[in-house]
Amino acid sequence: MNIDREKALQLHRKARGKIRIYPTVNIRNEEDLGMAYVQGGAYAAAGIMEDPDVIFEYSGKGNRLALISDGSAVLGMGNIGPRAALPVMEGKCLLFKNFGDVNAIPLCIDARNADDIVAMAKMVAPTFGAINIEDVSSPNSFTVVERLQTELDIPVFCDDQHGSAVVVLAALMNALKLVDKELPDTSTVIMGAGAAGISVARLLLNAGAGRVTVLNKCGIIGPGNGCMNFVQEELAKRLGETRGGASLDEAVKGADIFIGLSSRGKISAAHVRSMKPGSIVLALSMPEPEISWEEASEAGAAVFAEGLTGTSNAMPNLHAYPGIARGLLDVRAKGLNENILMAASRAIAGAVDRRRLSRRCIIPDLFSDEVTPRVAEAVAQTAIAEGLASLNVPPKQVYEETWQRLFGGIMERV
Amino acid sequence: MNIDREKALQLHRKARGKIRIYPTVNIRNEEDLGMAYVQGGAYAAAGIMEDPDVIFEYSGKGNRLALISDGSAVLGMGNIGPRAALPVMEGKCLLFKNFGDVNAIPLCIDARNADDIVAMAKMVAPTFGAINIEDVSSPNSFTVVERLQTELDIPVFCDDQHGSAVVVLAALMNALKLVDKELPDTSTVIMGAGAAGISVARLLLNAGAGRVTVLNKCGIIGPGNGCMNFVQEELAKRLGETRGGASLDEAVKGADIFIGLSSRGKISAAHVRSMKPGSIVLALSMPEPEISWEEASEAGAAVFAEGLTGTSNAMPNLHAYPGIARGLLDVRAKGLNENILMAASRAIAGAVDRRRLSRRCIIPDLFSDEVTPRVAEAVAQTAIAEGLASLNVPPKQVYEETWQRLFGGIMERV
Repeated sequence: MNIDREKALQLHRKARGKIRIYPTVNIRNEEDLGMAYVQGGAYAAAGIMEDPDVIFEYSGKGNRLALISDGSAVLGMGNIGPRAALPVMEGKCLLFKNFGDVNAIPLCIDARNADDIVAMAKMVAPTFGAINIEDVSSPNSFTVVERLQTELDIPVFCDDQHGSAVVVLAALMNALKLVDKELPDTSTVIMGAGAAGISVARLLLNAGAGRVTVLNKCGIIGPGNGCMNFVQEELAKRLGETRGGASLDEAVKGADIFIGLSSRGKISAAHVRSMKPGSIVLALSMPEPEISWEEASEAGAAVFAEGLTGTSNAMPNLHAYPGIARGLLDVRAKGLNENILMAASRAIAGAVDRRRLSRRCIIPDLFSDEVTPRVAEAVAQTAIAEGLASLNVPPKQVYEETWQRLFGGIMERV
Repeated sequence: MNIDREKALQLHRKARGKIRIYPTVNIRNEEDLGMAYVQGGAYAAAGIMEDPDVIFEYSGKGNRLALISDGSAVLGMGNIGPRAALPVMEGKCLLFKNFGDVNAIPLCIDARNADDIVAMAKMVAPTFGAINIEDVSSPNSFTVVERLQTELDIPVFCDDQHGSAVVVLAALMNALKLVDKELPDTSTVIMGAGAAGISVARLLLNAGAGRVTVLNKCGIIGPGNGCMNFVQEELAKRLGETRGGASLDEAVKGADIFIGLSSRGKISAAHVRSMKPGSIVLALSMPEPEISWEEASEAGAAVFAEGLTGTSNAMPNLHAYPGIARGLLDVRAKGLNENILMAASRAIAGAVDRRRLSRRCIIPDLFSDEVTPRVAEAVAQTAIAEGLASLNVPPKQVYEETWQRLFGGIMERV
């Protein structure tokens, strides 16, 4: 979709941040003031000192998410810093609200390194029910997320990592149904070993995928690849990879699945032809896919998808993060693991009606009103099953409440 | 005003944070999505990289304030920590919105010391147009505010310091009119040398007050007082105080003005009787004033005020911080100084109609619709005059816009 620059800037001038604060209490007289601030606030504070859990009853922590970014890897623009990143983060907060009824607060920070981001996120954690690390360059983003997941008692999510992985796995689940293959029997090639590539590989392993091969700009990651960072080295070990540095040609030959998550990477028709019959090609590089739908189809790809919204089988992260946050918050989750992410993938895949499933439709419609409620429900129940929830809720409740929040006109009921 | 505990907790349960995020953009289709997030956000980001000042046009920075607290000195409760402090900070954010149309974000932080608070505030500064340091214990709050004011390019305000000082000076301005004295000819005694006491003394000095004497729990601050912190030592030097450690009896004898800002301090009728004729007694300790209205009046106090709202001449900071923030944000102020604070005091004092000014009325009504617009206007124009504004606005504009925002039903026009 082509967006007019002047119109977009006009919208930004008019909307001034795209989100704002609204009061849920009216202050008409001194009693209102006493209730909401000094005396009332003191009663609530005393309650929390007595029983720390009531912070979820007496404050907005339980529906508030910190969207933290240092602006070091924003969209396709790279390291633009926290100031230029602000409109982008506000846009994401807008989507958290509109698609998940989550109160997301943009926190664009001047950070020198991963330690700064970790220190800042840990300090601010008491105020929030969840943290989303956003557009932090790789491998810093892995350091940050792993340390925070270990050290904090609220879930820490990274859309560039987890959101991408969840949506790719969802697409694969549906694509595999079409070609009648099972994930454990497949061989997958992932081109690109940044936040998304690494995370997709990890989630595929957790989901029981067969062979997974990952390439960075020096070829297959593994012993002999001359330009791996520590996250890539770690992953290569886990993959038991021995062909380090080998080429895309070698990697892709005989593979069932190709996933392009590189920046401006390309594959040829010959590459697709060298794959197994019933091949699945997810060419997710943006704005230009690694190969076009026409070329991939002619070369025999059975299922094809690309990243940009408005194109064939577009795979927006928007299917993942609002529902994941909604589900985690609704059970006051203390953490997040890959089983929860897999449940989100299954929920997204399941939101495509079986009768509509086809090589042109492996991912739900962008504006489906089923996706976020299903994802939230799956995440909530899996968090409970995994022992990561502080609040038990019966099945279906999170689904129903999320649907009511988003489409029943009952956003964050007061 | 007596607030019912159960009713207050019920309100907190219902309002869940008392503030929430609202979207200012509707996302109905892929064009809306592209405008507000990926492509549109990228255009706005590119614009900011080209010209850093347009961050105020393309983002919500210009009307967003960070309310930062470590929860170390909350209301009368002391060091309750960031979690218990959350409902109190959310209450303050609610008032920033309802009384100033400022988007204030509560950031309750786990900080070990002043350095942590400074580091956190500096990191997060790109996201905000102003910072309010709140309920941080003294003297840490002075260290934090002074360092941030020096190191950041946005105004840093501390309600416990500046808000209290502004309202006290406003009350004094009107009280002095009633007793027909001028500030430079007066002798003032301040009991209490915490955030408020120190700041009132500083602002009085800046306003040209005559003798100012400050007491902490060991007596008059100055050489010989055995329990001064570094801020008190600094102030004692500036005051040229030689009677360090001397008693309240000695301090108050012959004084024109008594200002009680102690925690649970008391003065006697004899103290008031020992003051000069036409004495002004501001007994601001909460919830119990240092002396009652009746006792002070009988002992000859010409003007009396206390701190708790709903009582005689109550002096709520609510008169100060919403308008100060509004004015600073409206001219994109780069900083804040004592001349700006004095202008805010004059504006508050001026909001009491001359014909209503009396010993029972030196402070505007709590719900006056004149105060915040006047304070915002005065702050804005003084910031411009002091060279601290990035945006020039004609006189009256901030007044008119603030009134429209608050009472014209045009809150944060989109």
